[in-house]
Parts: sequence; structure tokens; C-alpha cells
Amino acid sequence: MSVTLEQIQAARERISPAIYHSPCPYSLSLSRLCGCEIYCKLDHLQMTGSFKERGARNKLMLLSESQRKAGVIAASAGNHALGLAYHGQELGIPVTVVMPRWAPLVKVRNCREFGATVLLDADSFDQAQAIARQKAQERGLLFVPGFDDADIIAGQGTCGLEIIEDVPDVDAVIVPVGGGGLLAGVGTAIKALRPRVRVIGVEAENAPTLEVSLRKGEVTGIDARPTLADGLAVARVGRLCFDLIRKVMDQLVMVDEAEIARSVLRLLELEKMAVEGAGAVSLAGAMHPSLDLKGKKVVLLLSGGNIDVTMIAGVIERGLAKEGRLCRVHALIKDRPGGLAGLLNVIAATGANIKEVSHDRNFAPPDVGFVSVTCIMHTRDAQHIAQVHQALRDAGVEIREQ
Amino acid sequence: MSVTLEQIQAARERISPAIYHSPCPYSLSLSRLCGCEIYCKLDHLQMTGSFKERGARNKLMLLSESQRKAGVIAASAGNHALGLAYHGQELGIPVTVVMPRWAPLVKVRNCREFGATVLLDADSFDQAQAIARQKAQERGLLFVPGFDDADIIAGQGTCGLEIIEDVPDVDAVIVPVGGGGLLAGVGTAIKALRPRVRVIGVEAENAPTLEVSLRKGEVTGIDARPTLADGLAVARVGRLCFDLIRKVMDQLVMVDEAEIARSVLRLLELEKMAVEGAGAVSLAGAMHPSLDLKGKKVVLLLSGGNIDVTMIAGVIERGLAKEGRLCRVHALIKDRPGGLAGLLNVIAATGANIKEVSHDRNFAPPDVGFVSVTCIMHTRDAQHIAQVHQALRDAGVEIREQ
Repeated sequence: MSVTLEQIQAARERISPAIYHSPCPYSLSLSRLCGCEIYCKLDHLQMTGSFKERGARNKLMLLSESQRKAGVIAASAGNHALGLAYHGQELGIPVTVVMPRWAPLVKVRNCREFGATVLLDADSFDQAQAIARQKAQERGLLFVPGFDDADIIAGQGTCGLEIIEDVPDVDAVIVPVGGGGLLAGVGTAIKALRPRVRVIGVEAENAPTLEVSLRKGEVTGIDARPTLADGLAVARVGRLCFDLIRKVMDQLVMVDEAEIARSVLRLLELEKMAVEGAGAVSLAGAMHPSLDLKGKKVVLLLSGGNIDVTMIAGVIERGLAKEGRLCRVHALIKDRPGGLAGLLNVIAATGANIKEVSHDRNFAPPDVGFVSVTCIMHTRDAQHIAQVHQALRDAGVEIREQ
Repeated sequence: MSVTLEQIQAARERISPAIYHSPCPYSLSLSRLCGCEIYCKLDHLQMTGSFKERGARNKLMLLSESQRKAGVIAASAGNHALGLAYHGQELGIPVTVVMPRWAPLVKVRNCREFGATVLLDADSFDQAQAIARQKAQERGLLFVPGFDDADIIAGQGTCGLEIIEDVPDVDAVIVPVGGGGLLAGVGTAIKALRPRVRVIGVEAENAPTLEVSLRKGEVTGIDARPTLADGLAVARVGRLCFDLIRKVMDQLVMVDEAEIARSVLRLLELEKMAVEGAGAVSLAGAMHPSLDLKGKKVVLLLSGGNIDVTMIAGVIERGLAKEGRLCRVHALIKDRPGGLAGLLNVIAATGANIKEVSHDRNFAPPDVGFVSVTCIMHTRDAQHIAQVHQALRDAGVEIREQ
């Protein structure tokens, strides 16, 4: 079995009335950052926040009359469930999704609002899969896999057709890899239309499903570690995806957690986009030194936007600290009225903005006349932090930087 | 002096090669939230993050040869400066911007990267204006106002033409109001093409420039209070803007700081968009009870995305607290090994996720065998918080909710 350009084009016909042809604008800021011409395919702007709708819609449109009546079932902790639930409701097809108990509450609620029956019976994603397959048999429902299915892959491939239409002279396309359905579909479409366009996959180092399988020469299961790109953390790539990817992918890049976090922050700050970790790996990939993209025209596929706002807040705080825009100083001050005020005056004069102050009397130095204070403050950059340190030293304050 | 549809159409011709025709997609989530059909005009996706480029580009394109050579000067703490700097560089026109010293560093840096000369001489925006006008005279530069100028207004009006093209059967358009340039331009375009479309302005309660002027029947200066919608905090609406707005605006809505913050959070969470406070007031307006938009087709103009990420983090934290997704409990526990662990076990069993724990020994109750602990935790909603409280009471823990 395989997936052809014709199948992808047919999928396009089929789904286009109900799928958003997402824009693919040029980004000046990211182009400067990456040293090449960057366009972002904003597929996280689909109605349910991810590209998964494309494959789900295509699959649902291809059901027989009796299958439509009986309905479908799937296992998913997130975007696949949302895409299926939404388009199932649109088409009047009953949808059941088995989700692990730890699935984000907002996704559970959204699936239910789209009219899906949600079963929260599983402790793990694998268990959810097993339950869904079993219930499919018992109840005569069609099991819809998340990625390893020709109709699903053909649906995801439609995103590649749009990219070629919108940026006809593209040199390279960078695509996130989890189960591999998106890369298989998009890569197939692009290579069929423009064999010279480089197709680059990006994986999270903590979930190297494709990398391990490529190394072993066959689909190989892994134990994915937790990653900010949780949408990519699957146990194994699809078999059909793997076969297609081997034909169409030119290069695979691995990115680490810090790079993913930085990319989420950059997209928020420069592109005004909330992109989930799994979607932001494309940008992390584009900045990878192993890719020589200088001067090239590059499309980043931003595949999903379903990131929890608490996670965004965490990414911002940690990202700021890493970039010198948040700084922590431990200082020893005299334990008497005015001691703290004096310290804060010195800091204020440097233009840093205090965010938190805490005293630590118990672990202060032997000299009981002193007390240890920890200040967390907003700064502009590493140079500004150095200024703060210097100002404190000049004022005779004993500090420990960190 | 006035601004006509023809001037706006001419501006469109002039600027369209260099201005992004931003998309205006339908939003399912916001439609549900507001009870009407919501489309978002994503003008915060312009290259420098705001609609201000439209007017700036139009103005720059209309300069005489000698004016182009001499260059232009403006006063702005933000988006106007960015738009002017970027298009000035594009067109080879020297740009000087006078910014208040407190202007966000990232905007100062970006203006400089666009090749603008940035003067940080002013303590207030008014002072920046005065300096810019004075330097314009001294150096023979053209002073480019931020909103009260027919060419600027005509440029902003092009956004209205795009809205009518992309959502031809729109019933209402909601537009943020600061100096009034955007509303004047967009409103003029829309009323000329579709007199029956409702044109609604939204102002921050803390900066009621238009509201006060309408009440007094003439342009009236105000003392704007600080607002999350800092882009709207001007001292007075433009005179030309005011005259146009009186002709084309059907209704003005005032929104408070909590409503603006909630809208920023909603756009981030539901639309995957980082929109600045001044841009998010459109959504706040759409949710306002005084507007009866039920079942109508409504376009929200999202005018800018230049919000500081530290501000986003703050909005998220406060928004979560307000919605019951962050909860703080003060508890009295026994001051002995296992006391805190016991408390945390009770909380863990409810599924709440601890974010911060702090002891407060000094302000504990008279009984020295007890200690006061403050826990901040992530919860799902108000009902979940009630569960946490009940679980703690059931476990015999004395708590103070807050």
C-alpha cells in the first residue's frame, strides 16, 4: 500500500470545503533570526487548532453509508480526537474517543462539546489504543488510527499542496515528526510536484521514534521521555508512514527541550502565535546548525496550537531567565531597618524591575548581623545583569550570582 | 478636510504591494463564546505587528522627492514608530523617532534595527511630541502624526476594504479606539460600501478619549490612567478623526481592565494568538451586554500584537486565578515531621497540582504546635476548588480560603 499525489489531490477536492486553507505569510523577524527567508504555514489556525483535521475529515468522507451510521472510534490524548470529534459532528457521524485519564481537561471538554462520546478509561496511551480497538470490534465501529492509514496520510498531504501553491519557489519545507503521518503526506505531495524541494523532518530528542527506526532500518518502538512537544511523544512511527518517509525525506534533525522551549517563546514574541511544542519544533529545526539553509526560501509547518496557557507562562518565565531578561541575585544585607531598602535602591538605579524578594534568616552566614536576601528581577539582557552585579558590588553589597 | 472612499481606494493601490492582506478567518470557539458568528481580522500579523504600517506606508509613498530625501520624524512609544521605521527603510527614506525613555526596550531595538534614528530624550509622550515637532522645524523634516492626518487615516481605511472583500455579508465591525485613526478610516470605508454594516468602537475605560469628547461635543483632552491596552492611552482623539467618527460610528463601548485581560487570555487560548491589550479590546467589546449581536456576523479587528511576553505571563497567571484554575489556600498544619506531607497528600488526591508552598511561622496562631502554610495550586475550575476545600476540611485541616 502506498499514498500517491493523485490520492492527495483527491483528498483535497474532498475536504477543501470544510478545511481552512491556512495562510503562509513571510516572516521578517524569523528570517533575520534564521538567516534565511522564512515563511510560516499557520496550520495551527485550523478550527480545532491543528492539522489533524485534514486526515480526519478525509477519512470520514470516505466511509460507507453503514460505517457512517455506526460511527467511528479512536484513541487520542489530543489533536486527533478534536479533529475527529469536530468533523464527525459536522457530518453527523457518531464519534467515540478513548482518552487517557491524564488528558488535558480542556481537550476532554472540547471533544464533548463537539458531541463526541469520551471514555476516560485508560492509564496510558497504549491502553487507550487497546480499549478503542476492542470496543470497535464489540460495537461494530470503525477504528480510525491517528497516523498509520493511507486516507489519513493523504489528508495531511493536502497541507503540502497548499504550501506549493502559496510559496511556489520554496527551497525547503520543515515538518514536525511524531507518528510520521504529516511528514509522509506533505513530503509525498511536495516531492511529486517539486522533486528538488528539500523535505526536512524534525524530531524531539526525547521522542526519537523516526531516528531510531531509521538507524535500525525498520519500525522500532521506543520509550519516549516527557517532552514539551507532547504531541510528538508516540511509541513508534507508523509502518506506512515510515516507508513513505524513507522515500521523500532528505534530512532529519533532532532538537532538545531547551531548543523547543526557545522556539515556542520566539513564535509567541516575534510571530504573535501560540504554537504548541510539537508545532514549534519546525522553528527549532530551522535554527539547527546542521542544516545549511542560508539564503534559502524555507517554509516552517506550524502544525498545532493546543498548548496549555499554564505551559506558556512556564515557557516565558524560563525563557526569560535563560536570555538574561530575568535575573536572580542572593545578597547579604545588614539586618536592620533600611537594609533592604538600601539594596533595592541600588537595584532600582540600574533600571531593573523587582519581581520577587525573599528573606532567608535561617541559612544566613555566621554573622548574625547579616541576613540573606534573594531578589528576582526583570532585566534587559546579560549586559544589564552584569551592570546590576557591578552596581551592587560598588555599593559594598556581598552577592552570590545565580 | 475629510477622507473619502476614493482616497482610501487610492491608498490601497499605493500600499498593497508592501502591506500584508491579513486573513480574516471564522472562529468557532469565539463564536460560541460570544453567541454570534465571529471573524477575526488578523492585522496584528503585519510585519511589524500592527495596522499602523498601512497609514505609515501611505504617508511615505505620498512624499515629494525633496521630502523623501530630507526624511521624516515622528513621536511614538510603539507601533507607529515601528511601522514608519520599517517602511522608511524599505523605501530608502530616513526616519527619526522620538520615544519616551520608558518605551519598551524591544521596540527601541527593533526601530534601530530598521535603520531608524531613535531619540530617547523625553519623559512623557507629550514631551516626545513637542521634541519631534521642534526637531522637524530645525532639521527640515516632515513630522508624521500617529493618527490625525488624512493620508494616515486613508491608509488605515484600507483594512476596512479588505474586511468587506473577505466577509462580504458582515453585519458589524468592532474596532479599537485610541487616537481614532483606525476607526475613522475603517468606518469611512465600510459605511461608503455598506451603509447598513454597524460600525462599533471600543475604548478602554481608563482612556476614554472618544467618550469624553463625544459627551462634550468637541475634542477634549483627558488624563489617561494606565491600561493594559497601552496603545490606546492617548491624551486626545484626533480632530479629523473625531469629525469622521461622528459620521460613521454607530456605537461606542467601554471595557474595563479585567475585560481586556480576559480577552487577551481568550485570544491566546482559543485563537492561538498573542494580541496586545489595545488589539484585544475588540473581543472585550463583542462580549459586552450592551451590544445585541446575537446571531450576527461580526468582524473583530485585532489591530496589534506587540505585547511584552512578561505581560502575557502576568495576564495568564491572573486570568487563571480569576477563573478558578489557580487557587490559594492558607492551612494550619502540625509543626512536626510529616505535617506538610500529610497536607500535600490530601491535595494530591483531589488532582490539584501544587505550584508553590510557603511556610509562615511568624504569623502562625497562638498555639505554637501549629504552623501556617500557604499553597498555590493549579485547579480545573471553581467546582474543583470547592472539592479541594472540602477534602481538606474532611481531613480535619483548618483552612482559610482566598
